[in-house]
Amino acid sequence: MSGSETRSRRIRHLPFTRKNFAPFGDVIAATGAHHYPINAGTTERYHDLARLEAIGPSARQLISIFRGLPRTLPMQIVMMERHPLGSQGFFALQREPWMVVLAPDMAGKPGDPVAFLVEPDEFGLCGVNYHRNIWHHPLIALEKVCDFLVVDRGGEGNNLQEYSYPEPWLLERA
Amino acid sequence: MSGSETRSRRIRHLPFTRKNFAPFGDVIAATGAHHYPINAGTTERYHDLARLEAIGPSARQLISIFRGLPRTLPMQIVMMERHPLGSQGFFALQREPWMVVLAPDMAGKPGDPVAFLVEPDEFGLCGVNYHRNIWHHPLIALEKVCDFLVVDRGGEGNNLQEYSYPEPWLLERA
Repeated sequence: MSGSETRSRRIRHLPFTRKNFAPFGDVIAATGAHHYPINAGTTERYHDLARLEAIGPSARQLISIFRGLPRTLPMQIVMMERHPLGSQGFFALQREPWMVVLAPDMAGKPGDPVAFLVEPDEFGLCGVNYHRNIWHHPLIALEKVCDFLVVDRGGEGNNLQEYSYPEPWLLERA
Repeated sequence: MSGSETRSRRIRHLPFTRKNFAPFGDVIAATGAHHYPINAGTTERYHDLARLEAIGPSARQLISIFRGLPRTLPMQIVMMERHPLGSQGFFALQREPWMVVLAPDMAGKPGDPVAFLVEPDEFGLCGVNYHRNIWHHPLIALEKVCDFLVVDRGGEGNNLQEYSYPEPWLLERA
């Protein structure tokens, strides 16, 4: 493989902003979100931060906790997955950076992946919600074991599609 | 009001355990929950920690963030509410104590309230999910402004019932 071909398999990074993330899903954060007072003014509600979906007669949303081992970068990205029957939201429970790798759909397969480095300094504690059918890499914690509150779909039916790229992509820190 | 009558309006505290909380809803925590490895062993999934409900043709689950001002104890508890069309889950996003006040239903009204002091030392970061139609007091943060990730129902229909006790109850720290 020539130098230029190697370079072309490096995953492109995008700044983690609501605008950049919008084609894939939602940024779940109070910062910059619509809010209003409730409970006689003792609580502020940052309202409806993610488009949740759960399709199918027995479908329902689940709350789970994912505990992710830290991955070492650079790492190879080979397999991507998506959930045709529901959204999947991840909210980080510690102020540590983590990485989100997503891809647009290209005729039923993931196209070139892009990466978002999520750093809590930007939004405070925050999360992301992958919309239904968005190609994504499984959870990538960095540096230490990290917990995430996860809201995704449970119920009957095949809610998982996987795809392996013919050649691996390289994920770097930035 | 005599001394004994005053004493009888003090809210009873229960230790915050899954067993004590079960009549009202779920403790949302990895500690002590069913779990299994996913993502080729890089992630542990603590699975399906809360019974979420959203009733009605246009109903869906929402993710929001509640930012609660700290309340000073002792405080009077007068009003309780419940949501006939959906569950409501709260997950604390900082290691600070907070208070949950709940009541059994007595023929369509809340009975004598009970209090749970939620201290993160016990479960780590954790939350609670009120089952549909469980009487509860609005969010009670303590000591500092606290954020909670909230999963509750959105959609058409009246999902709020409120009740004011004829005499206030007194909520103390423990």
